[in-house]
Amino acid sequence: MLALVYDGEPRLRADYNEPRPAAGEALLGVRVAGVCRTDLEVVKGYMGFTGVMGHEFVGQVLQGPSEWRGRRVVAEINCPCGRCELCARELGNHCPNRGVLGIDKRDGVFAERVAVPVANLHEIPDGVSDDEAVFVEPLAAAFQMLRQVQVTPEDRVVVLGDGRLAQLIVRVLKAHRPTAADNALLIVGKHAEKLRYAERQGIATRLAGDFAPDRRADVVVDATGTAGGFELAMRTVCPRGTIVLKSTFAAGEGFNLAPLVIDEITVVGSRCGPFEEAIAALAAPAGSPRRVEVGGDLVSRRFGLSDGLAALDAAADGRNLKVLLDVGV
Amino acid sequence: MLALVYDGEPRLRADYNEPRPAAGEALLGVRVAGVCRTDLEVVKGYMGFTGVMGHEFVGQVLQGPSEWRGRRVVAEINCPCGRCELCARELGNHCPNRGVLGIDKRDGVFAERVAVPVANLHEIPDGVSDDEAVFVEPLAAAFQMLRQVQVTPEDRVVVLGDGRLAQLIVRVLKAHRPTAADNALLIVGKHAEKLRYAERQGIATRLAGDFAPDRRADVVVDATGTAGGFELAMRTVCPRGTIVLKSTFAAGEGFNLAPLVIDEITVVGSRCGPFEEAIAALAAPAGSPRRVEVGGDLVSRRFGLSDGLAALDAAADGRNLKVLLDVGV
Repeated sequence: MLALVYDGEPRLRADYNEPRPAAGEALLGVRVAGVCRTDLEVVKGYMGFTGVMGHEFVGQVLQGPSEWRGRRVVAEINCPCGRCELCARELGNHCPNRGVLGIDKRDGVFAERVAVPVANLHEIPDGVSDDEAVFVEPLAAAFQMLRQVQVTPEDRVVVLGDGRLAQLIVRVLKAHRPTAADNALLIVGKHAEKLRYAERQGIATRLAGDFAPDRRADVVVDATGTAGGFELAMRTVCPRGTIVLKSTFAAGEGFNLAPLVIDEITVVGSRCGPFEEAIAALAAPAGSPRRVEVGGDLVSRRFGLSDGLAALDAAADGRNLKVLLDVGV
Repeated sequence: MLALVYDGEPRLRADYNEPRPAAGEALLGVRVAGVCRTDLEVVKGYMGFTGVMGHEFVGQVLQGPSEWRGRRVVAEINCPCGRCELCARELGNHCPNRGVLGIDKRDGVFAERVAVPVANLHEIPDGVSDDEAVFVEPLAAAFQMLRQVQVTPEDRVVVLGDGRLAQLIVRVLKAHRPTAADNALLIVGKHAEKLRYAERQGIATRLAGDFAPDRRADVVVDATGTAGGFELAMRTVCPRGTIVLKSTFAAGEGFNLAPLVIDEITVVGSRCGPFEEAIAALAAPAGSPRRVEVGGDLVSRRFGLSDGLAALDAAADGRNLKVLLDVGV
């Protein structure tokens, strides 16, 4: 089958082996897939991964239990062992033996077909389009912070970064706090054209160059992926406040965590999240305060799978937000 | 009066101006003072401080409200403005306008006398000796983590570091969890002779070179003051676990917080703490599970104030735990 693989370099292969579902797994036809920053990290050698790239997608069940066959689905990306101490504590997303679609030990979704555990499947309701459904995985990651940190309508929240994930985070925060004042949520980024996506959702924005941190935010979300972003977060959050760390970075010489101690800041690392909440937010009726709008305006470019290499290049271009691959719609 | 001051270098001065208590302040005679790592940082230029050094002490009220006069006291070191937003939220320890005894904008306690706000005073019960009372401030800092993080008897807790603060932290944790299993608390340090202080308290110890982190600790306390200590903490704590950061450091090139995100770790910065809890722990009767033993074995060296410079040198010597100054007993 056709697949975009990484084996030291990204490569389009027409002859990649068909996936063979193991016991408890389903075979899915991929409909639409999304390119994520993590895919770009894989191309730089992240996790030493080799195989089919990609983990954001919506597909259709081709083989599997009869109750699932034919359904349009998304799938959680962590495939835990089910037998270890962390799995027993329902922390399968942290199972040390887990495979992760397109990231660690398991073929991903930039291919015509993929095998995934049936336990990972979530059906997509009819009212949610493919272009919306492909956002379920990153949207769930945005929802995760609300499982970890209590955010009230009164809290002053600042989101640092204006990339794909930051855009979803501000939308989730706005939907989570429909009664919050307009100045209770601010997104700070370096790109005026990207901040406009948030503006159009009625979210306050500030160019990074115009932003003066004042240690008054109760919650700061760092989705910049830079050491400078984390340092800015430490100057933005109030004493005893919380920084949610949604992206990773390697720091330079002299990076200093002293503000965490002096201001008694809490840092919460946050990764994959609840698919069911993301699907419910997409399925909520238009006009509902619980609805999160994705798809449409956030999709900058789209390519066929056979142009997958061009899609990776487009996703690496800072001007683009989400880049999609049309695989088998 | 005699005072150990820092004005670009540490200096003993016999002619330092007598403190003049402002409204709401008391004049104390210093009895015994302790040298802290922060004092050594002040000598390196921390906070750009100049004035009388020192903040750990026990003294006697010489002038002030009649109900306080003559009493043996300790004093909280943060002197908040009482008028700002943080003070209104009872976060005076984080008041941006605060002075801090011997650290920021206010003369400290390595002197014959010191002026402090009456609101900062805590009386020391008769059953607590001067050598114990001088530990109230760092012991309160050790108690602070229990206000910020819930630690149950079942939690596996690892304390990294074997210095002054780490020794107090393991004693507080042991007193806080009298029913915890012996393997629920471990202190890891580089100095066999320092680990012995913990061993004598019935606390399990491990030399750093013999310690194999396994990502299974629920709570890790980093009191090492090194980037390597924090990196070890990230490899020691379990996914979704908590690192309590009690000491600060500047990291080298390439320092990487990615494990915080991948393992969804929470980091809690922790600084000054509740004096009343520390005093209650020292005042608890011998044999009480709530009692924390300090003083005695933890005091490595003691000097008169006129030998204050030698005391600073002794405190900088890694072989010594607490160094005390006998000022006016």
